[in-house]
Amino acid sequence: MARFAVLLSLLLALVGCRRGHAASKPSPALPGTLGTRVLVVERASGSLAAYDWSERTLLPNRIEGLGDLHHATMTFGPDLHWGFLATRSGRLVRIDLDTLKVDGEVQTSKNSIDLGITHDGRTIGVAEYIPGGVTLVDARTMTVKTRIPSSSRVTGMVDAPGNKLVCVLIEGQEIWILDPAASPPVTHKIKAGAGMPYDAMITADGRHYVVGKLGSDGIAVLDLEKPEAGVREISLRDPELPADVGSPKKLPHMASWAQAGRFLFVPLVGEKRLAVLERETFSFVKSVPLRGHPVYTVRAPSEREIWVSFSGEEDDAWLDVVDTTSLTVKRSLRVGRRVYHLDFTPRGSHLLVTANADDELVLVDAVRYEVVDRKKLRSPSGIFSPFRAARIGL
Amino acid sequence: MARFAVLLSLLLALVGCRRGHAASKPSPALPGTLGTRVLVVERASGSLAAYDWSERTLLPNRIEGLGDLHHATMTFGPDLHWGFLATRSGRLVRIDLDTLKVDGEVQTSKNSIDLGITHDGRTIGVAEYIPGGVTLVDARTMTVKTRIPSSSRVTGMVDAPGNKLVCVLIEGQEIWILDPAASPPVTHKIKAGAGMPYDAMITADGRHYVVGKLGSDGIAVLDLEKPEAGVREISLRDPELPADVGSPKKLPHMASWAQAGRFLFVPLVGEKRLAVLERETFSFVKSVPLRGHPVYTVRAPSEREIWVSFSGEEDDAWLDVVDTTSLTVKRSLRVGRRVYHLDFTPRGSHLLVTANADDELVLVDAVRYEVVDRKKLRSPSGIFSPFRAARIGL
Repeated sequence: MARFAVLLSLLLALVGCRRGHAASKPSPALPGTLGTRVLVVERASGSLAAYDWSERTLLPNRIEGLGDLHHATMTFGPDLHWGFLATRSGRLVRIDLDTLKVDGEVQTSKNSIDLGITHDGRTIGVAEYIPGGVTLVDARTMTVKTRIPSSSRVTGMVDAPGNKLVCVLIEGQEIWILDPAASPPVTHKIKAGAGMPYDAMITADGRHYVVGKLGSDGIAVLDLEKPEAGVREISLRDPELPADVGSPKKLPHMASWAQAGRFLFVPLVGEKRLAVLERETFSFVKSVPLRGHPVYTVRAPSEREIWVSFSGEEDDAWLDVVDTTSLTVKRSLRVGRRVYHLDFTPRGSHLLVTANADDELVLVDAVRYEVVDRKKLRSPSGIFSPFRAARIGL
Repeated sequence: MARFAVLLSLLLALVGCRRGHAASKPSPALPGTLGTRVLVVERASGSLAAYDWSERTLLPNRIEGLGDLHHATMTFGPDLHWGFLATRSGRLVRIDLDTLKVDGEVQTSKNSIDLGITHDGRTIGVAEYIPGGVTLVDARTMTVKTRIPSSSRVTGMVDAPGNKLVCVLIEGQEIWILDPAASPPVTHKIKAGAGMPYDAMITADGRHYVVGKLGSDGIAVLDLEKPEAGVREISLRDPELPADVGSPKKLPHMASWAQAGRFLFVPLVGEKRLAVLERETFSFVKSVPLRGHPVYTVRAPSEREIWVSFSGEEDDAWLDVVDTTSLTVKRSLRVGRRVYHLDFTPRGSHLLVTANADDELVLVDAVRYEVVDRKKLRSPSGIFSPFRAARIGL
């Protein structure tokens, strides 16, 4: 009898134990919390590293085996539960932001270039290269909702007001507006005008979709308030410069266009200047001369400064800081060789920079213009903060 | 022997069980994750309720015993670990956003009215009523760093670029700029001009600090880029209306001023209109006629709409939606009696509203202009989302 009693209590203990485990999820026990964490693409090794800029520490977790991450970008749902990564291997990967582990994936194509999430956080749109077209994925179940085939490669996938998505067809030379709640989901197909689109961006208010053209100094602008009116073609040529100098050979990734106050700042690759446009009219205002060929322009949250990175060994370790009132370079800062990406912390106290040739992630105090931390990473590239979830177009 | 073996395994099981518990932190086991959670002040009961707008569910936790929460506001650190609540009881309370439990507090005065957090997340500034002055609190240790006494009540505490804080003295009629890294921390004291300040706000770019004057149609604007130049006094009178109508008796809480595109929308309590000002010059543009006396104006993240709430039983169940291009009311929506507060989700797919007289929190689909969820709360008032951490001045 006594033995049975003991056996019984043993069983009860084990049951209790199991119940105890069921009721408590294992703690990730990671330093910091997700707000100050950024995920950094390690391009060569196909991994994501995590850094907390408040704790100034690399997190132990490294998310490995993600495939080809060239030009890989991430987007974040509003609940901050997950980050979504589109890869050149055609895999859409979902990362749990609490545990920093892969929490679901789906093969959407052989080669994806870009992605966007609807404002309600329910649908991911993936821009496909091979084969072309768009894949709509349910963000919760990570299953394909709709496949919209096309013979053309697709890029420039962004979110837009009204739980919509917008993208552009490269060979198709068409802008598509998608509403995942409609059927068919593609509600508008708009001619993108002359020249081959290579990338696009949406303004921070989600109103204008701007398409860059390969080997052209022209852009196409679509007002999403009246898509039926079609695109306006706008030249970035500087009337005060000779055409051969004023015409950029190529535009950089357009996520790098910075908007501050009533201006839009456009880095012209192949030229040592930024083009400043009027935000509302897209008319040319002036050029801002720079030390070298700009790649990225990032706006400080205060909108008082634009921070610019460069291509070319003689300049690519430097950042120029452009004053958005005087429209001149107010200072330059050396951060590390071959700067690939830069991103501000939510309210702008700090700036994160990847110095790819130095294999470093660099933390800059943006108030004192000082480098305050450096961490070694493997060929670091894109930097992605969960606060992208608070901004239209990222 | 067998019995001892059983006892031993029982002990081991219990040890294993305990170790299991030690290794895993007890899970809050709350629905959703913190991004889509909002905290709602329940004024009458001095509590905070939590709602997840993506799951459309009230969380089981209710944070009780917080004291007098009239006009209580919350601010959030960039790591999204904590929310901070200043109370009319003079207690600064820190809420853990993961567990939704109180995680530290400090008595800063007998009566606090407002608070702000530096962009690096290190310092909280609390505006004190009784006694007056400012208290600077270390956000990590929740201990008082500095007490800056004043015979005057202080209000309008906001964060500003450069890890600074700005506030205004009511009886002192002075604007203070504080740099917690400096000693003494008050780096500027600027005369606020004629009339008694009652509240203030900072523009979304953190450049202009705007002070409202009691019983006056004038405001004082300070350009934080050149504080030494002092304030500019600006009238909100409509030149096309007779002075007695055009002069508001009183201005509402100025956190309710909405900025969209190049305009600033000012609700004039005691008048059935919004004043539209030029964002950069603060010059008067026009009045937007409304159904009643406006209280709150909130900008949609797309900046295409301003949503307006009203005072007075005949109007306070309604929201007017103002089109920011035509500057006219495009539609009206009945949400619930005595609307106290409204706030958009990060990219604007939904709007959260408290209908105080109906004891309801209301979720509005801002794309379809439809009420999609209602939850009963106790005298609900302020609605606070962790995404405030991404915006200057909140």
